[in-house]
Amino acid sequence: MKKIVILGGGFGGVYTAMHLIKKFRYRKDVEIILVNRENYFVYQPMLAEVVGGSIGILDTVSSLSRLLKGCRVYVREIEWVDLEKQQISLLPKYTHKSSLIHYDHLVIGLGNVTNFKGSSGLHEHAFAFKNLSDALSLRNHIIETIETAAYQTDPELKKALLTYVVGGGGFSGTEVIAEMNDLALRLAKNYPTINPKDIRMILIHSKKRLMDKEMPKTLSLYAEKLLKKRGIEIRFQSKLVSATPRGAILETGEKIAAKTVVSTVPSSINPIVESMQLPKVRGKIATDAQMLVDGCTNVWAIGDCAHIPDITKEEAFCPPTAQYAVRQGKVLAHNIYASIRGKQKKEFRFKCLGMLAALGHNSAVAELFGKIRISGFIAWALWRAIYWVKLPGISRKLKVAFSWFLDKVVPIEAVQLKLAPSQAIASLHYESGEEIFHEGDTGDYLYIIVKGKVEILKGEKLEKIAELKDGEFFGEMSLLNERSRTATVRCITAVDVLAIRKADFGMLIANFSEMKEKIRSTEEERMKKSH
Amino acid sequence: MKKIVILGGGFGGVYTAMHLIKKFRYRKDVEIILVNRENYFVYQPMLAEVVGGSIGILDTVSSLSRLLKGCRVYVREIEWVDLEKQQISLLPKYTHKSSLIHYDHLVIGLGNVTNFKGSSGLHEHAFAFKNLSDALSLRNHIIETIETAAYQTDPELKKALLTYVVGGGGFSGTEVIAEMNDLALRLAKNYPTINPKDIRMILIHSKKRLMDKEMPKTLSLYAEKLLKKRGIEIRFQSKLVSATPRGAILETGEKIAAKTVVSTVPSSINPIVESMQLPKVRGKIATDAQMLVDGCTNVWAIGDCAHIPDITKEEAFCPPTAQYAVRQGKVLAHNIYASIRGKQKKEFRFKCLGMLAALGHNSAVAELFGKIRISGFIAWALWRAIYWVKLPGISRKLKVAFSWFLDKVVPIEAVQLKLAPSQAIASLHYESGEEIFHEGDTGDYLYIIVKGKVEILKGEKLEKIAELKDGEFFGEMSLLNERSRTATVRCITAVDVLAIRKADFGMLIANFSEMKEKIRSTEEERMKKSH
Repeated sequence: MKKIVILGGGFGGVYTAMHLIKKFRYRKDVEIILVNRENYFVYQPMLAEVVGGSIGILDTVSSLSRLLKGCRVYVREIEWVDLEKQQISLLPKYTHKSSLIHYDHLVIGLGNVTNFKGSSGLHEHAFAFKNLSDALSLRNHIIETIETAAYQTDPELKKALLTYVVGGGGFSGTEVIAEMNDLALRLAKNYPTINPKDIRMILIHSKKRLMDKEMPKTLSLYAEKLLKKRGIEIRFQSKLVSATPRGAILETGEKIAAKTVVSTVPSSINPIVESMQLPKVRGKIATDAQMLVDGCTNVWAIGDCAHIPDITKEEAFCPPTAQYAVRQGKVLAHNIYASIRGKQKKEFRFKCLGMLAALGHNSAVAELFGKIRISGFIAWALWRAIYWVKLPGISRKLKVAFSWFLDKVVPIEAVQLKLAPSQAIASLHYESGEEIFHEGDTGDYLYIIVKGKVEILKGEKLEKIAELKDGEFFGEMSLLNERSRTATVRCITAVDVLAIRKADFGMLIANFSEMKEKIRSTEEERMKKSH
Repeated sequence: MKKIVILGGGFGGVYTAMHLIKKFRYRKDVEIILVNRENYFVYQPMLAEVVGGSIGILDTVSSLSRLLKGCRVYVREIEWVDLEKQQISLLPKYTHKSSLIHYDHLVIGLGNVTNFKGSSGLHEHAFAFKNLSDALSLRNHIIETIETAAYQTDPELKKALLTYVVGGGGFSGTEVIAEMNDLALRLAKNYPTINPKDIRMILIHSKKRLMDKEMPKTLSLYAEKLLKKRGIEIRFQSKLVSATPRGAILETGEKIAAKTVVSTVPSSINPIVESMQLPKVRGKIATDAQMLVDGCTNVWAIGDCAHIPDITKEEAFCPPTAQYAVRQGKVLAHNIYASIRGKQKKEFRFKCLGMLAALGHNSAVAELFGKIRISGFIAWALWRAIYWVKLPGISRKLKVAFSWFLDKVVPIEAVQLKLAPSQAIASLHYESGEEIFHEGDTGDYLYIIVKGKVEILKGEKLEKIAELKDGEFFGEMSLLNERSRTATVRCITAVDVLAIRKADFGMLIANFSEMKEKIRSTEEERMKKSH
């Protein structure tokens, strides 16, 4: 029994599995296993539409076990991969034991992940835009800002609630701000207290034109004109570097007061891929044109995490797009089949058919076959037609078509779906000079300083009464005795804090105390006893 | 300008608001405000269908702002209500300041809440079944148990994964276990490794027959027969009292190994209602037949949180059902209108039309007008017809109809929607004699004992090397040094612990230490300085 294990359920992994299932149908000597963190496959091209709401929340996702009948789908997190022993360990689930899987062929299709580490503040206060939960969280949040702004009496807060900043003017940044703008404007119609002109959408892009990597200049300019016409501000040669609870911070130091900051910066390598001892080029796994990892005989890589030569051009490599991953899957399935059955392997050869970007509001831009350029409604209709045809499964097609139809005939449905209670502990980032809270505010959180310095100020004259730094805490007084803050806290430097909700504070303080001191002695004691 | 403030967006609150909007249309002298924690209204009767999946996740909910045009909808949490000053304070949102609202008329429609406090273990390990997020969490969890069971090699764990215990055989318990059974069986079809006969559904009911409060005996017996035929076990005169990560615990002390425990026990009074100084009868706010709270002139109560006389019978009170709340809303709106305009108020008078309970799988039971009893497919068709007609809004009707249609023609879509990362800290409850972890297990969590005693055991002979109690912690060694547990931990008494994920442990330990000791001295010091 040969075991083929596929890591990752994105376009690369799923299409490889689909073709493998076909090739080995009715053969009992091969087992195909796919490991993915989620139990669904996300149809990425339509993710921005989830934000806008023109399709339903689950319309972009398909159940992996239904999509891949004949393949074992393990919905698990990978702990480690041992290339020598040909083993994979999966983190425990419903038990305390990790599971080991052996493989004969390994396909790595783990894509990449959003990684805000290094850029302080973005991790804590910016929305990512990569997977389904990002799209839903962003949609929920925009609904919340509009609802809160509608009956907001503080004009400054209202302005910040209606300001939306998106970092990155590539494909996803451009698509998502167009959808965000549509959503905010449609929602605002429900509230006479919101003037549509007060909604500010700002796109921050480090290059000189939109989608500079993906689209030719004419289409970039068309997209730019279109977004500007709809009231979206675009700032070129500018960069989003940080965020705080108050707003976005640009490279120049400029601050934009906003309660919504989105960052679509290029994502980084998956930590599991990083931990594997494989040859890499710019963080991606180096393979030959057959997608076999350099120096290996049974390890393959596909999609965004792989560095696969594009043999149609000289010294070129396949771009990280769904279009390529889908075709790679077919060739990779063949090559694994050929390896097992001793047949001839194939090289991956594909020429990009074109690029499409939806810009919301019944418009899009497209470049086809490197020649034809279309924009506006026709491009949009083409976008919908192409992606609809490519949607996996008839029921998904029906659902999306019905959603599109409903979206045109009925007003927007703005339900904020909350699944989990808010976290007991939140990490927050503030820049120097920002106030964390003001005297007289409601005392809702206790703060612990992870990094940085703050000053405690008292009275109208803001008289300084104390300075606190790393490891110290503040805000406990209003939690213990009183309803409102008895002092103002302002940051001297950039500050990272942990905020603990009032209700959870008691539970934690009762249990964590003395732990650090005790931990070493306890450990030693027990070690002695056990020997 | 008169302000009418409605607390709560359930059937009572929403229907009161709808009728008030109609009555005061085009009058600029009245403002209607509704405060609710969520931005949507849940159509409760169809909630069980969300678990089963025959309708979409958002098909049961409607956006409040769209449903109630002409009413200000505040999506906020209530901090307190001051009946003397006629003020309500809302907890801060996007700021640190609470908001105050004044009212001239106050409508309390806060329903009741799930409250597991007092029954240790249920709070931590049982699913509630009350609101949308409960229904979704339960659905996600059932999908996960089936997927995990499918490729589970440990037969004991597989058995526990496929065992489902529901506590409470009233309306919601009966409806939900029927839907759970349908879902589990439909999902299992995808996996040749799961024998449908291995799926165990157990309904625990303290009375002698199902839905004893709501349905006549003949229909109870019919429902019982039907559920039993589908393989559901029913235990009468039995009670679910606790739960642990291993399973359910009954009043008799019997343990049922199960990874899914649901409790539909009667819910308790909303804490905000509890905090208000109003006359109460068995926890509910006492009103007259006009729904005016006893002793008040401008405070009204409606729905599940109100104790409203039923004047069609002697010494009877309105039951807590949607049917009543909807009709109460109309009368209450009239009475507030009458109060403001100096007209004649009305008393609430309504006779129950009947009761319907869906039992999944195209069957239901119904009693109409206290006389006619129907069961099976006809009752089910009636159930769907009645509740479909009552659904608010045409687009919702379209969506639900389309979902019902799709559900019949395409196979089940089993997507597990995860919105938030799992919590860094979890509260867990174990019973005496249970193992928390075993030597050699993967070290994934650190544990702090909140209450109870555990013993640390070493080696195959389980030699006792230590005993730990409240405030002490264990499991830190494998987090610090090693991958797997170096000892076994077993509970001597019932134990409550906090479990902290490996990844979050470092962050917390670095910050919480010494805090308890320091907090009092710091506080004193700052108090001195500020005076």
